[in-house]
Amino acid sequence: MASIPRIGIDAMGGDHGPGVVVQGVCLALREMPGRLSVTLIGDETEIRPHMKRDVEGLPIEVVHAAGRIDMAEKAVAAARRGSSSISVMTQLHKQGKVDAIFSAGNTGAVVASALLGLGRLEAVSRPALAAFFPSSGGGCVVLDVGANAECKPSYLVQFAHMGSVYARYLLGRDNPRIGLLSIGEEDTKGNDLVFESLPLLRRANHLNFIGNVEGRDVFRDTCDVVVTDGFTGNVLLKTAESVAALLFQKIRSEVAGDPMAMLGTVLMKPALRRVMRQIDWEEHAAAPLLGVNGVCFIGHGSSTSRAIRSAIRTVTTFVEKRVNEHIREEIEADRDTAA
Amino acid sequence: MASIPRIGIDAMGGDHGPGVVVQGVCLALREMPGRLSVTLIGDETEIRPHMKRDVEGLPIEVVHAAGRIDMAEKAVAAARRGSSSISVMTQLHKQGKVDAIFSAGNTGAVVASALLGLGRLEAVSRPALAAFFPSSGGGCVVLDVGANAECKPSYLVQFAHMGSVYARYLLGRDNPRIGLLSIGEEDTKGNDLVFESLPLLRRANHLNFIGNVEGRDVFRDTCDVVVTDGFTGNVLLKTAESVAALLFQKIRSEVAGDPMAMLGTVLMKPALRRVMRQIDWEEHAAAPLLGVNGVCFIGHGSSTSRAIRSAIRTVTTFVEKRVNEHIREEIEADRDTAA
Repeated sequence: MASIPRIGIDAMGGDHGPGVVVQGVCLALREMPGRLSVTLIGDETEIRPHMKRDVEGLPIEVVHAAGRIDMAEKAVAAARRGSSSISVMTQLHKQGKVDAIFSAGNTGAVVASALLGLGRLEAVSRPALAAFFPSSGGGCVVLDVGANAECKPSYLVQFAHMGSVYARYLLGRDNPRIGLLSIGEEDTKGNDLVFESLPLLRRANHLNFIGNVEGRDVFRDTCDVVVTDGFTGNVLLKTAESVAALLFQKIRSEVAGDPMAMLGTVLMKPALRRVMRQIDWEEHAAAPLLGVNGVCFIGHGSSTSRAIRSAIRTVTTFVEKRVNEHIREEIEADRDTAA
Repeated sequence: MASIPRIGIDAMGGDHGPGVVVQGVCLALREMPGRLSVTLIGDETEIRPHMKRDVEGLPIEVVHAAGRIDMAEKAVAAARRGSSSISVMTQLHKQGKVDAIFSAGNTGAVVASALLGLGRLEAVSRPALAAFFPSSGGGCVVLDVGANAECKPSYLVQFAHMGSVYARYLLGRDNPRIGLLSIGEEDTKGNDLVFESLPLLRRANHLNFIGNVEGRDVFRDTCDVVVTDGFTGNVLLKTAESVAALLFQKIRSEVAGDPMAMLGTVLMKPALRRVMRQIDWEEHAAAPLLGVNGVCFIGHGSSTSRAIRSAIRTVTTFVEKRVNEHIREEIEADRDTAA
């Protein structure tokens, strides 16, 4: 690792194209001068036009990659295509030319590319995608939200360790509370995976395990980390996102035809803005693929430049705090149940 | 069945006590004169005081049951206790003294009591709890949301048939679109249950099966019925409820200290009320346990009298339209894959 982290960023990732990615990178570099440098990966002819005035004096280099992976492409096949910006980015990381990678592109392809290209941390059986959820407290990390549709109980113990380390170093929680996602708090409720994982989690070392929790606990500040299989976690993630979207859409459409209500929203704007800041997915849009032998974060396809800025901030902190070393140590220290 | 349905109602069910249940019953009976009669089951000394002026001339009888099951009690053990209002209610239904039952009490206990006391419809392997979700269209039914944490693929085909019949007769959908909950639309995504259920659902008769759907599709009017195992469905249900609750709580608390915003909410009230009417859980708070040999609906513990009124309306329609007969017919007609 160089003295300051060099972050590799997929310039072609995301719905809004390279312009928004370049903007986000500039925001991040201006906000954190001297803390990182950036390598943009993608089609130079598309990236360069966005790098005119803004980038002067900023530590950005561009590595050309001719291909791109569309949002709708099948993950594994796409990831194997060596010429894409995602594949080139992963290779740069593998070769040690960048210290971390970030893409707001096709999630499945980034996951597949990282798994194939970087491999796993020695102690980890299955890397997991960790998503941050706002709550009535400081928020909660849920993993896995999609990397492993089928999980063994021992994977969930590893997820717990990885989530615990993440919550400690990235969210500043002292002794992160870990919950196992189930359909009731009682030990007697759950599916086979829950029944088999519960005793393993209970006897794991170094874990502040609080027992079974429910979907609602993710949003209630009852725990800092929730572990589950990647199928259930993915359903939880997409459900939460779409309920919020549905509510705002309904409110917007009802307000649109009602002048008094439109005036009302103007008066409410500062309060609503404060709410949005608290539950802001954009501020926490980057999900780490914990457990790969490298640092890989994935952003929402709809990431704005602000979202990309905060993603880069999180990635940089992850590298600075050497989270992967702590993950390795923590899982090794619980060899009995997790490793 | 008598000429009009007699509905058995657990007067002790719900967080607000018998007073609210009696109020809801009165609202329903006044709204639908001549369409139903009601048997209230519970502790007479607690019910009678709420039956003074309101109930005059209304077709209500009371059956005494001394015991009650608390919301926190373990389901199966509680359900076996014969003296509780839930058990007495189930027995009345089994004996044909009421044509349907409804409780806003302990969900697990009502499910267990119905499964043990009523048994299954002949064609059905596993009854499923079906929940209604508001969407950008007319709403969507998801099942199972908690009766079966572990499911076989053939159960999901039966859930599809039961959900389809329910959507047709209760929600008025002509040819209900059925989706299988997964973590992507592609056939290649999912867990083992999804992979095994998909071909069965594809070749099932009489089903308008549209393939795999995601958590977000529940709220997007892409389908009318979503089938899943009771573990995933329960997580989906509790996540959706708590995201909505979290949003409203955050908005309320930010508005509270801001006089302009408070004025804003006053101006927005009619628009917000229209939104609430569209996404109103109270209007759809009764979840049927489809596939039991009887008619059993379960309400949210926090049900208000309005919620109980709409639940009774739905239960009555379910009996009138003889939904169970249609379920039996539909599953029998697809003997190859579902029965």
